[in-house]
Amino acid sequence: MTRFDHDLRLDALQAAYKEGAFTPRQLLVELRQRAATLNSDNPLFIHLLSETELEPYLAALDGKSPEQLPLFGVPFAIKDNIDLAGIPTTAACPAFSYTPNCSATLVQQLIELGAVPLGKTNLDQFATGLNGTRSPYGACHNATHPQYPSGGSSSGSALSVALGLCSFALGTDTAGSGRVPAALNNLVGLKQTRGLLSASGLVPACRTLDCITYFAASAAECSKLLALTAKRDPSDDYSRANPLWNAADAFGSPRPFRFGVPKTPEFLGCPESPGLFAAAIEQLKAIGGTPVEIDLDPFMQAAKLLYEGPWVAERYSVAGELIERDPEAVLPVIRAVLDKAPQFSAQDAFEYQYRLQGYKTLCDQLLADMDCVLTPTIPRPVTLAELEAEPVARNSDLGYYTNFMNLLDYAAVAVPSGFMANGLPWGVTLFGRAFTDQYLLSLGAALQQYSGLPLVGEQPLSSSLPATPARNDMARVVVCGAHLDGLPLNWQLRQRGGRLLEATASSADYKLYALAGGPPMRPGMLRVAEGGQAIQVEVWELPSRELGSFLTGIPAPLGLGKVQLADGRWETGFICDPYGLEGATDITEFGGWKAWLASR
Amino acid sequence: MTRFDHDLRLDALQAAYKEGAFTPRQLLVELRQRAATLNSDNPLFIHLLSETELEPYLAALDGKSPEQLPLFGVPFAIKDNIDLAGIPTTAACPAFSYTPNCSATLVQQLIELGAVPLGKTNLDQFATGLNGTRSPYGACHNATHPQYPSGGSSSGSALSVALGLCSFALGTDTAGSGRVPAALNNLVGLKQTRGLLSASGLVPACRTLDCITYFAASAAECSKLLALTAKRDPSDDYSRANPLWNAADAFGSPRPFRFGVPKTPEFLGCPESPGLFAAAIEQLKAIGGTPVEIDLDPFMQAAKLLYEGPWVAERYSVAGELIERDPEAVLPVIRAVLDKAPQFSAQDAFEYQYRLQGYKTLCDQLLADMDCVLTPTIPRPVTLAELEAEPVARNSDLGYYTNFMNLLDYAAVAVPSGFMANGLPWGVTLFGRAFTDQYLLSLGAALQQYSGLPLVGEQPLSSSLPATPARNDMARVVVCGAHLDGLPLNWQLRQRGGRLLEATASSADYKLYALAGGPPMRPGMLRVAEGGQAIQVEVWELPSRELGSFLTGIPAPLGLGKVQLADGRWETGFICDPYGLEGATDITEFGGWKAWLASR
Repeated sequence: MTRFDHDLRLDALQAAYKEGAFTPRQLLVELRQRAATLNSDNPLFIHLLSETELEPYLAALDGKSPEQLPLFGVPFAIKDNIDLAGIPTTAACPAFSYTPNCSATLVQQLIELGAVPLGKTNLDQFATGLNGTRSPYGACHNATHPQYPSGGSSSGSALSVALGLCSFALGTDTAGSGRVPAALNNLVGLKQTRGLLSASGLVPACRTLDCITYFAASAAECSKLLALTAKRDPSDDYSRANPLWNAADAFGSPRPFRFGVPKTPEFLGCPESPGLFAAAIEQLKAIGGTPVEIDLDPFMQAAKLLYEGPWVAERYSVAGELIERDPEAVLPVIRAVLDKAPQFSAQDAFEYQYRLQGYKTLCDQLLADMDCVLTPTIPRPVTLAELEAEPVARNSDLGYYTNFMNLLDYAAVAVPSGFMANGLPWGVTLFGRAFTDQYLLSLGAALQQYSGLPLVGEQPLSSSLPATPARNDMARVVVCGAHLDGLPLNWQLRQRGGRLLEATASSADYKLYALAGGPPMRPGMLRVAEGGQAIQVEVWELPSRELGSFLTGIPAPLGLGKVQLADGRWETGFICDPYGLEGATDITEFGGWKAWLASR
Repeated sequence: MTRFDHDLRLDALQAAYKEGAFTPRQLLVELRQRAATLNSDNPLFIHLLSETELEPYLAALDGKSPEQLPLFGVPFAIKDNIDLAGIPTTAACPAFSYTPNCSATLVQQLIELGAVPLGKTNLDQFATGLNGTRSPYGACHNATHPQYPSGGSSSGSALSVALGLCSFALGTDTAGSGRVPAALNNLVGLKQTRGLLSASGLVPACRTLDCITYFAASAAECSKLLALTAKRDPSDDYSRANPLWNAADAFGSPRPFRFGVPKTPEFLGCPESPGLFAAAIEQLKAIGGTPVEIDLDPFMQAAKLLYEGPWVAERYSVAGELIERDPEAVLPVIRAVLDKAPQFSAQDAFEYQYRLQGYKTLCDQLLADMDCVLTPTIPRPVTLAELEAEPVARNSDLGYYTNFMNLLDYAAVAVPSGFMANGLPWGVTLFGRAFTDQYLLSLGAALQQYSGLPLVGEQPLSSSLPATPARNDMARVVVCGAHLDGLPLNWQLRQRGGRLLEATASSADYKLYALAGGPPMRPGMLRVAEGGQAIQVEVWELPSRELGSFLTGIPAPLGLGKVQLADGRWETGFICDPYGLEGATDITEFGGWKAWLASR
């Protein structure tokens, strides 16, 4: 049996089940045997489910089919700081261990969708670390290159996918734990917007920042998993619904986008990373992106707060009691981090919150006219030997680009984008404003499709990418009259942060009228079967959440519908209820509102 | 000279200036003389501007007119924890005093709009208190009844308006300081959504909660002031823009609304307050409100966190150094409050934050299907004698209904609603979700207009109320086809928290078509000059911020515009671009989509 007997990616697996190639029971038994073997070399599982423990999950699938359950028989792994009913949750600290009666909300959702938990995975103790060696259950090494760490803290979860044991795995991410191991093991790691997935049933690291995350071979799979499980959970006070509802965009087509690129990217002396990052920038340009330089300094300043500041007290809330009672129960390196916690006062907590708010204001402003930002996921890989020599400094190196995103409430997707000369995977991260997850994943999917890199298991990339890209958090509006740049109602767009994207023309199917009444004079643009013409229009962009109040302020007979542009695209724009044309003047011949105004 | 020689309300004052009744210089000189006299009895000003100090503000108005400056010559007072350039800011603590070079952003905005600062007003030291007696500059008493306190901490600011010295005044509000003195002195007190007005240049009490607030005689004036000055301030990290842009609603008409009423209101034994509150409920019903019982317990639990919990450390950030250096410089009652601060750890700060987040989740849910909530502003007034006997307990009584609103990120408007038998003013508070300020003010204005109570100065209520009510944060959408309750696309409304408001009919001006294509089958509703009919429709309500993503998902030829209902109202609803009717079937005769579906 080779490492990748089966293609475990979601679509391939569902196809195999549909063909009757094997049953979930056959697959899971085989995978758990292989996992047991692999575990002796690389301790990725803390608890591998026994056949008896697997049985209830498998029995629940009997008589069911992939048509009924979107994750029918899909093996997944669970980081061992997330509850699975009846199995100990250790957080990689045996003395902390407890056995929950209920599974975490997200685990339960996945099981109800047909997925089968294979085991609980190893992690940096209390999810405190980014390298995968800080565990009494043993240090995890990289899936590709044994002299490198797996990355952490979600070490075992990443390995379970990278070693072909699971289709996907649950990690967690407070400062990079769901992205660093993705970069190091040729995986996609989704650090979704905090609250989009329930964190109920998670042993917190920093409860205000924690996310449960997905690892999978492809962004398309992460997108599907997120779409299936993103849901407000009343049992998680930090749970939030996605106001964009952008899992799929019925009118999507690949659109040009602007992505930030660090003005002075840091690679900590790595000779290969600069070239790999430059190549990733080219890949993003090839799929429609325009790079824009961005000063990452305020982001880095925010990141510093995390390790200098009082957030360590959140970790102490979880492990502090144990440390006070039985210090030896906690690894010295973890204790050293947490020991700083009691020195922080409530006053410190508030003062760091003020400082963070200051950086967030700056960073949000820098992001305002971009669709996302591209960074390396890690500035340079570190070897196990380097880590052993300087465990804290080298661990920090790994988090250079990941630490700030949770603090600043951003979404992030780590995507493989190349390999180093020694075969070690290398990757980039796309990050953006809260709730743009599905948009970032759609860019990640396009990037993977374009780069055509070998995925986990050396399988070619499945073609089942999202058919259409997901929507961003910005809405486009086609305007043709008083909202045009410089005209009397343009302020309604500008006060909402509106930005002119392009001055263009409609398709040659429209008539333009000057409506009766005013001031301000208003136009009506009407699509016609015959006698139409191209009309000069502008495409503006404004935050989707403000489009509703813009619409509510539009008086009859105007409204917003879909308008076709000269290049064939349909975009949201002004339409006119035809009864309102009574008394209107046909000004189509002028070809646009401004031309007509100038002629008067 | 009587107490109210001049009607200082905004409209009346501007009219007087336009008539040439007096100049700003004449008015301000007269007012400062009167203020100096009043101050000897009731120490409302800590610093009254001298004629020399007034002169630059007056000189800036020379040659200007009310037509050019919306607040031309309007006298206002500034709570002495807010900076006015060149005048000491004391926060009612002489040892803390400093003299700023620049005015607070908001003060500067007001001055640029033509307003003239009359002086810096007395307050409970460091804005810590709700009664107005905690000041080394003397205790303020009530404007109406000398045996009662002014309320605080914005004591002098409230009195400056209540005693006819200023048109409006700036207070601050961290837990009720902008509302309690409003209730006790027959004023409207606006505790706007945090961040809507700049707090830059304010001595913080709790920086994460503080708001600079307005006192005025009427809600209409507060609405005007808010509309003039609500603006993102880059120098205030907690500043936020209002995404609703609802200062005025071009299509507004008084609309029915649902208001929460405490299931078991607490009046702390006051014999008169229950009747006054019952009367206010009746008034709100008379202007279109439907009361809905609400359990205030989670709100009260959140309020408790504020005084039990670590937020006192925020106050200590400001005054702690002085207390440590010179304890006698701070009033014993304030010291007693702040002395608890150092005992709170960062871990406490986070743990209370988790608890607050839990209550916020509960409270937001309770508010979800209401437009606002009505409470008494104070459960009962307390006398100066009672306060002296038990300064902490009686101070807490005053904050019973006000403490939770800042913590929970709500907007609140305190409105006068009656008088006690002894002549003391009594009032209610309307509170609601963040950014509903202008909506709450429009309800407050309607309430004042309906109740017709004598305002400050015994002047009748000015008729210049907002012509139309401001928009709430909920948008209404008229649906006529696949989005109707129970039909295939209805989930698009429900997933956004949509709620069915009414099943009704359009005006008799529409034709209904079944468009070609589908599934799902979709209707087109077209307004016609002749041959139209009333069509069965439903009016749904959903959060305005989610209307944009709903719109973006609507395919051509449909869109959202304005639809007229049977009762003549125009609401946002589905319209159809007529070119899309090619191949459509006229189904007008069925009178509605569901009737047509049933006939097939």
